[in-house]
Amino acid sequence: MEQRVHNFNPGPATLPLPVLEEIKENFLSFRGSGMSITEISHRSREFDEVLTDAIDRTRRLLKLTDDYHVLFIQGGASMQYCMIPINLALPGKPLNYINTGTWSTKAIKEAQIQGKDVRVIATSEDRDFSYLPTDFRVDKDASYLHFTSNNTIKGTQWHHYPDGEGVPLISDMSSDFMSYPINMKPFGLIYAGAQKNIGPAGVAMVIIREDMLKRVPDTLPTMLRYTTFKDNKSLFNTPPTFTIYVIDLVLTWLEETVGGLKEIEKINKEKASLIYEVIDNSEIYRGTTEIKSRSLMNVTFRVGDEELEQRFLVETTKNGLHGLKGHKSVGGCRASLYNAVTIESVRDLARFMREFEGTARRFIQA
Amino acid sequence: MEQRVHNFNPGPATLPLPVLEEIKENFLSFRGSGMSITEISHRSREFDEVLTDAIDRTRRLLKLTDDYHVLFIQGGASMQYCMIPINLALPGKPLNYINTGTWSTKAIKEAQIQGKDVRVIATSEDRDFSYLPTDFRVDKDASYLHFTSNNTIKGTQWHHYPDGEGVPLISDMSSDFMSYPINMKPFGLIYAGAQKNIGPAGVAMVIIREDMLKRVPDTLPTMLRYTTFKDNKSLFNTPPTFTIYVIDLVLTWLEETVGGLKEIEKINKEKASLIYEVIDNSEIYRGTTEIKSRSLMNVTFRVGDEELEQRFLVETTKNGLHGLKGHKSVGGCRASLYNAVTIESVRDLARFMREFEGTARRFIQA
Repeated sequence: MEQRVHNFNPGPATLPLPVLEEIKENFLSFRGSGMSITEISHRSREFDEVLTDAIDRTRRLLKLTDDYHVLFIQGGASMQYCMIPINLALPGKPLNYINTGTWSTKAIKEAQIQGKDVRVIATSEDRDFSYLPTDFRVDKDASYLHFTSNNTIKGTQWHHYPDGEGVPLISDMSSDFMSYPINMKPFGLIYAGAQKNIGPAGVAMVIIREDMLKRVPDTLPTMLRYTTFKDNKSLFNTPPTFTIYVIDLVLTWLEETVGGLKEIEKINKEKASLIYEVIDNSEIYRGTTEIKSRSLMNVTFRVGDEELEQRFLVETTKNGLHGLKGHKSVGGCRASLYNAVTIESVRDLARFMREFEGTARRFIQA
Repeated sequence: MEQRVHNFNPGPATLPLPVLEEIKENFLSFRGSGMSITEISHRSREFDEVLTDAIDRTRRLLKLTDDYHVLFIQGGASMQYCMIPINLALPGKPLNYINTGTWSTKAIKEAQIQGKDVRVIATSEDRDFSYLPTDFRVDKDASYLHFTSNNTIKGTQWHHYPDGEGVPLISDMSSDFMSYPINMKPFGLIYAGAQKNIGPAGVAMVIIREDMLKRVPDTLPTMLRYTTFKDNKSLFNTPPTFTIYVIDLVLTWLEETVGGLKEIEKINKEKASLIYEVIDNSEIYRGTTEIKSRSLMNVTFRVGDEELEQRFLVETTKNGLHGLKGHKSVGGCRASLYNAVTIESVRDLARFMREFEGTARRFIQA
């Protein structure tokens, strides 16, 4: 049996161990076909079952009504930053964006590159994106209102979605997708790169409402049109078959082993509170975001001074607690607690953090 | 040990067994990291080694000079049909395309969607794309000349590339990439979806010459610019890490176990000749393409009448010879003999085809 570490990577991130074991077990022959999942045709009955199952599970987990479509599109969230304005901007109607850091900023930039009428109606840049803005006015005639549901880098998360006042919401949910039940009603489109909560890197899941598809200009390149993916069940060209297969396994685990989104939400809240409790009762750990905006998925914090922080990162790695270094753009520490991170991993981290603080205090006092 | 079949799938296609075994063996802990390759960061030292190795091996295998760049871009060849004209069309200079069937036709369509001055300088549509056109004139001032090196569906392959007369060649090499040595000199860009000769589905490898990068308009969406991928070593956003890892393993196998492109070319010629020999000496098998244009990668043929052909397809499957049905758009049979298809698999197929013909003759005579 291989030695595994506690993996707090921000993405690509840890996957449920039973899923990895199932992939490994069947890797040379998928469902008795005598071929690896990587070797079977995307037009085969076998793969169609996988794809259909992944879509059906998504529909059940998110309780999607019939007017929503589940699409798999390559290029990650970054490609969506381009596809959203090019497909969904209505002529003469502004695009509204809320800027809560890196990913929102990139999404805004891509809409601006296209020369659209982009209005950033709120931003938390004034305090380094450490909170979520609440005071803003949506343009009544906006094509859509775009926001990032969870900022992986800064560690903020919307716990109540912004009110679009009738304007369709669009959200980049890459880092908290499928981590709690979503009320889909106000959303025209949500999207998520797979590599945090639902699978390996290589595809984004896009959920789009029927009325949004009517906006798609038919003059766009085929691979940039949402309608291409909807009309062909994401099989216009060869999709990333292995990635979709793993997503299907993760969703199966989420639905059948965990018991769905309400259950995973409970577990995620418990996991995050274990770490925030340590931080809130500490003299060396400091959270970096406003308390009411902090994320259940990415817990960002600093440890004492530069030297102590470095020691913390070295010691965690030595103790099998991996991936705790903050994003290169902000430094510090970050524990990503996605769905597949077990409560045992989180308990081990919390315990280590307490012990490290004890040692550090003795060290400081000495 | 799992029962494996002889896999003649057109793509996604068979992979070298030692590669699959290595993936399986290390799937729960990549290089002793305690994490699966699917769980490690694309910014980690481990993944950077994989990516660098894949690029270096590509450079060595294709003997690339320093002015060529190796990029990994999601969306397959279909996304390249869009990216090529949008990035590389020069203002006021026509685009030249040769149409040899489905994939060329799609590439042409995408350039036309963009409103470019597209000139199809040759086509073999008059005889259902069963041959490659040789009589054409390249526009002296063309931005580029695009052709498909191998037509997976019709079973044709260029054995001598068209002469661009100084105009940069661009080629979709999805289905014969890395199957023989390439003289890169006349090429401004070549590209290949991974899922035939070099890996699983989910990425295209693009090799682009420095001077072509100078054409890229900086007004394009970030994810559609070749310069984005070149400037960031294909790491502007999260790449499909698992797919690139498998590509690296396949290229390692190709370089170290097989011995390079000259060696694989010899083997591929031998494999194809085993099947073509059966076809050329048969009363029931008929090749569907002109002999001098036929492909070493995709051998397309018909078997007797409808009924006999159906029986052939049923019997091959029963005998562990998988994936021989022709593309849905053309019917008939097709044996795809990519690099990873072993000579043993091909011998088994040739033997079966001979035996089947013997039985069929007795059946017809009776």
